[in-house]
Amino acid sequence: MVKFAVLGCGVVGSGVVELFEKNKALIEKRCGQELEMGYILDLRDFPDRPYGNKVVKSLDVILADPDVKVVAECMGGTEPAFTFVKACLEAGKSVATSNKELVAAKGDILLKTAKEHNVNFFFEASVGGAIPIIRPLHKCLAANDFTAIAGILNGTTNFILNKMIKENMDFSTALALAQEKGYAEKDPTADVEGHDACRKICILSSLAFGKHVYPESVHTQGIREVELKDVERSSELGYTIKLIARVQRLENGKILPTVMPMVVEEDNLLSQVNGVYNAVMVRGDGISKAMFYGRGAGKFPTASAVLGDMIEEVQLDHTIPAQTWENVNSTDFIEDFAAFTAKRYFRVSGEDAAALNAVFGNLASISAQDGETVCITDKEMNADDVEAAAKALNGKGIQVLAQYPVLVS
Amino acid sequence: MVKFAVLGCGVVGSGVVELFEKNKALIEKRCGQELEMGYILDLRDFPDRPYGNKVVKSLDVILADPDVKVVAECMGGTEPAFTFVKACLEAGKSVATSNKELVAAKGDILLKTAKEHNVNFFFEASVGGAIPIIRPLHKCLAANDFTAIAGILNGTTNFILNKMIKENMDFSTALALAQEKGYAEKDPTADVEGHDACRKICILSSLAFGKHVYPESVHTQGIREVELKDVERSSELGYTIKLIARVQRLENGKILPTVMPMVVEEDNLLSQVNGVYNAVMVRGDGISKAMFYGRGAGKFPTASAVLGDMIEEVQLDHTIPAQTWENVNSTDFIEDFAAFTAKRYFRVSGEDAAALNAVFGNLASISAQDGETVCITDKEMNADDVEAAAKALNGKGIQVLAQYPVLVS
Repeated sequence: MVKFAVLGCGVVGSGVVELFEKNKALIEKRCGQELEMGYILDLRDFPDRPYGNKVVKSLDVILADPDVKVVAECMGGTEPAFTFVKACLEAGKSVATSNKELVAAKGDILLKTAKEHNVNFFFEASVGGAIPIIRPLHKCLAANDFTAIAGILNGTTNFILNKMIKENMDFSTALALAQEKGYAEKDPTADVEGHDACRKICILSSLAFGKHVYPESVHTQGIREVELKDVERSSELGYTIKLIARVQRLENGKILPTVMPMVVEEDNLLSQVNGVYNAVMVRGDGISKAMFYGRGAGKFPTASAVLGDMIEEVQLDHTIPAQTWENVNSTDFIEDFAAFTAKRYFRVSGEDAAALNAVFGNLASISAQDGETVCITDKEMNADDVEAAAKALNGKGIQVLAQYPVLVS
Repeated sequence: MVKFAVLGCGVVGSGVVELFEKNKALIEKRCGQELEMGYILDLRDFPDRPYGNKVVKSLDVILADPDVKVVAECMGGTEPAFTFVKACLEAGKSVATSNKELVAAKGDILLKTAKEHNVNFFFEASVGGAIPIIRPLHKCLAANDFTAIAGILNGTTNFILNKMIKENMDFSTALALAQEKGYAEKDPTADVEGHDACRKICILSSLAFGKHVYPESVHTQGIREVELKDVERSSELGYTIKLIARVQRLENGKILPTVMPMVVEEDNLLSQVNGVYNAVMVRGDGISKAMFYGRGAGKFPTASAVLGDMIEEVQLDHTIPAQTWENVNSTDFIEDFAAFTAKRYFRVSGEDAAALNAVFGNLASISAQDGETVCITDKEMNADDVEAAAKALNGKGIQVLAQYPVLVS
């Protein structure tokens, strides 16, 4: 018999307890042994819930129980989560977390601590909710040299953009609806400004390339500026605007992680990922490409991922060597955003196709309407190229009204 | 240092060797130790290849080498693969296979043998080529009670249907093109008649529901009868014809595995899986649904999956208890195909909407053109219902020209 504990009885924590109780027989069969939910750490009491008698107020109770082999951390935030998780690992208990903020900020330290104490620090639930992506990336695809990862990693912004795309809602109305439905927080900054997606691409980048990528190293741009007009006009050209978290390895060997709105061609599966769903496209030299799709958040989807980690821990009895990365105390392996190049979507004033051709060269597509023109460039442009083109167009009396890079994934 | 051996130096076997040599440093880092490709078992010689000196003609050499910890079986077919794999497991060597025929026919025996000898029998490469699906299903999603799996599991038929859909090619022309491109065998029976997809849904069903499902228990229907007309007309209604391998758990607790052409709504991601790509949609009570997408076959995609298994084996030092299922010596847990119900696509002669309404009740959609009418029924129908409807329509002078079930996934 193995005991587990849950830190934090919020949405995810209670989901872990409830999904475990629902599927206990099945889970124990798959584990090969009996499991018991030993403790729930929370400052609140839950007298009305069936597991109310398992609530404890101090981590020490959990640390002191030798039967507790694995701990689910579902508190969120960096502290006290970091202190608690580190204490669990040091006490010889493996940890499964859903906390992307913690993994993005402290993953290197916690992985090292886990290794030193011959336990595991698992975080499948920290990226993509229910979607199996961490384990597939570092196990199933471990024979691949990765070249790029691109994903829709934030359900809230995808829901908002979807409402803009499918129902012509403007950004503020769609945000208000997301808040009403409980998809967006009262303070939606972390989602809307791209910070949440940034943490997740940090985790995937660290895992794929073996060096800790901190959020501060990632060019992060949210969706607050996305106008309904660009949603409509890019669709005319066969593209959809999505908030894309992405990392690519460049020819110089450096990696370039970014979070920003990009236009995605409609025959790319990522453009078809709607509502609160998430998806991650992975490129490697063996697989060419693979995509993983599912619910990116929510009580039971996230609980499913946490429990998956806990089940593996119960099946194992030693540290997994592959799931690790190092802190190289340098950001030299990360390319500056100035080096980012992509084909571009432009929306400009006027309907002067000849002027656009003169500045951009060949265009992949173009559409003029109501005194404005949208186009997709044929050539890849970096930020300097975009600025130079805007200046050149300006000289011809044309204003650049909006511009987005095109995703190739 | 750990040695491995490869049985069979065909497309997949040579892919395993070449991808390993290409990414050796990376793979060894992820394994946490050095790896050596020790032997290739093949009847042929490969004097011109860099690994030509590793070729052996007898399995005994491999069995006798205590340094060989894991063996990749890439021969295909049931024999001698079964005898060889069993001998390896009994000699204390774990096996990773890409051979779906072997797993579908003998998985229960080989999993049992592996367990008895404290080694692993891995088969990630047997379903979906490069797509991580076996490990995600039995590890990441292990907390879920599964209710259904539906997938496009055969790239050849998907390529053919795609050519019919996108380029209006008829079946025979598309098949000839697939053969020309090397996607289809000279004798395309296994692909075209659905046997390949059947083996794969047997493996997924066995894993998800814990009991061995043999190919003989699966209603299997291929795509040879699919007419260009239905490809075109179903598309008018917003549907795409795909060869769908599927298993669902019914309310009586039995499972119902099927392989057959089905019409898929265009907002279902499975309808967007094109060319030789494969995809698997999984439904469980924790995750709601998740989808896995990637290359379903090919040298390096399949090699990537085989090597992923081998890497996990090197990292581990014991049997994985969850990856198993039992032979229950009965098919009582499998529902008869007669119980299969679904909404239906019909193509019938004439343009008499009133007659169709009289027979089918409400219709979800209908479109009449050139003396034929296509429709999607609102009610679910089993085979008896379909037969009764055909008889009733006949009484009104209307012929049923084609009929496909609608996928709900």
